[in-house]
Formats: sequence, C-alpha cells, structure tokens
Amino acid sequence: MNSYVLPTDIAAVSLALTDLALCEARLMNDARYVWVVLVPRRAGVVEIEDLPPAEQKQLLDEALEAGRRVRAMGEALGRPVEKLNIAQLGNVTRALHVHVIGRRADDPAWPRPVWGVGDAVAWTAEQGPIVQYAWG
Amino acid sequence: MNSYVLPTDIAAVSLALTDLALCEARLMNDARYVWVVLVPRRAGVVEIEDLPPAEQKQLLDEALEAGRRVRAMGEALGRPVEKLNIAQLGNVTRALHVHVIGRRADDPAWPRPVWGVGDAVAWTAEQGPIVQYAWG
Repeated sequence: MNSYVLPTDIAAVSLALTDLALCEARLMNDARYVWVVLVPRRAGVVEIEDLPPAEQKQLLDEALEAGRRVRAMGEALGRPVEKLNIAQLGNVTRALHVHVIGRRADDPAWPRPVWGVGDAVAWTAEQGPIVQYAWG
Repeated sequence: MNSYVLPTDIAAVSLALTDLALCEARLMNDARYVWVVLVPRRAGVVEIEDLPPAEQKQLLDEALEAGRRVRAMGEALGRPVEKLNIAQLGNVTRALHVHVIGRRADDPAWPRPVWGVGDAVAWTAEQGPIVQYAWG
C-alpha cells in the first residue's frame, strides 16, 4: 500500500509547483536561490536504491527536467543560473527527496553548498508568480 | 575528440579505486568518511545534462553501484553506513563529478553536508587496503 504524504518539514519551507509523474515538485521558499525539491510520491522510501529501477530512471529524468525549469526561472528573474547543484542528502528529513538548485557566483553561499548558510528569505508577492510561472 | 584527463584537484585529494564503464571511481583520501567520487571520462562535460541520455543513465547506475560499494567498505571498517549522500555540485571543480558518501550520526559533519567541515584525515596504511578492497 502506498500511503504517501508530503513530509511536514518539507511542506513547511516550500511552495507547491506541480506534480510530475513520480514526484511532487516544490519551490523552496527562499528567494536567495532558485531551488526546487522533488519528492517521489512513494511511502517509506529513503534512498534512491529503494525505488524500483524504472522509478530510479524516472527520478533522474525529473531532476534533469527540474534543472531546465530552474534555468528558466533564473532567466525570468534576471538571475541566470551559472551552475546546477543536484543532491540527495536526507540526513535530517529521511523521506527521499532531491534538491535541484540554481547557483550563481553572487549567491550568499557560493561556492559552498547552500545548506545551513544564513536564514531563508521568503519570495515576495511580486517574485512568486515569476518563479512559479514555469510550472504554474 | 575526447581528450579527457582527471582534474588535477580531484587527483590531489583522492586515491584510485577502479575504472567503471563511464567513470573513474576515486576514494577521497579522508578517513572521516567513506567517500567515493565518480568522474565520467568525458572531456568538457560540466552538468549531467551535457551527457547523452544513455550516459546519464549509466552515471546513475554507477552512482548506485558506488553506493553499494560504499556500504561494503563501511561494513569492512566496522562503521556501517547509516545514510547515503549522492550529490553533483561542481561549484569549485567544474568537470562533472558525483559524490557518493557514506554518512553516520557519529561522523564529524553530521547532520550537515560534508563539504568544508574541518580538515581531511588521510587513510592509514592499515585502513587503505580495507576500504579499497571492494574495488581493489
């Protein structure tokens, strides 16, 4: 039985974008980065290896699609992506999720990873529609 | 023309493990973690999207294989992996490479990502063969 629910700690810090075939795509509510999180709608899955092979491949394809969307959002904001970061960590929130982050040399964490650097800055009412348009 | 060479900054901090179909598998010379880096033997590739689709899939398969090997190395050291971290960042070293890291709640960076935390501790002559055995 698949009794998937979006992890509450991811829900609390992100905004809905769209449902892909496997994953919920969420926008992190942190205007410092264009940062999408993909959460496979599968209960009890922690590692990529826990998915069946077809869904592992689907997750990769959705991460690459998210990368294209992140690039489009960055363009729409006038902040083109200079480097993508794609990562599956899960040390704190165990339910499998993949980060797809657009990085720039002028972002506050560069060149280090984004996690744990300062505090999130919520998207404004003006910015929100711009960044959500790609999957609005 | 594929004039691939292993990036010198990766070579400087890691030890050879084996050649996979697509990637060089390297062991980071940092005994605080069982940490493998996969480097596709392709010149000029920065993002996963720069690879043709068949090689994107191969990279995923090799990352999952590296995860199994990292688990085996952790077992051999008496430090079983509690969580895998799989990440493609490349903010500093641009040539495409994927990190596959075995994490434990007693490692020095837990639960944060490993990058930029303290200084690497080289594997000892006793530990080296143990961790390299899986791909020795």
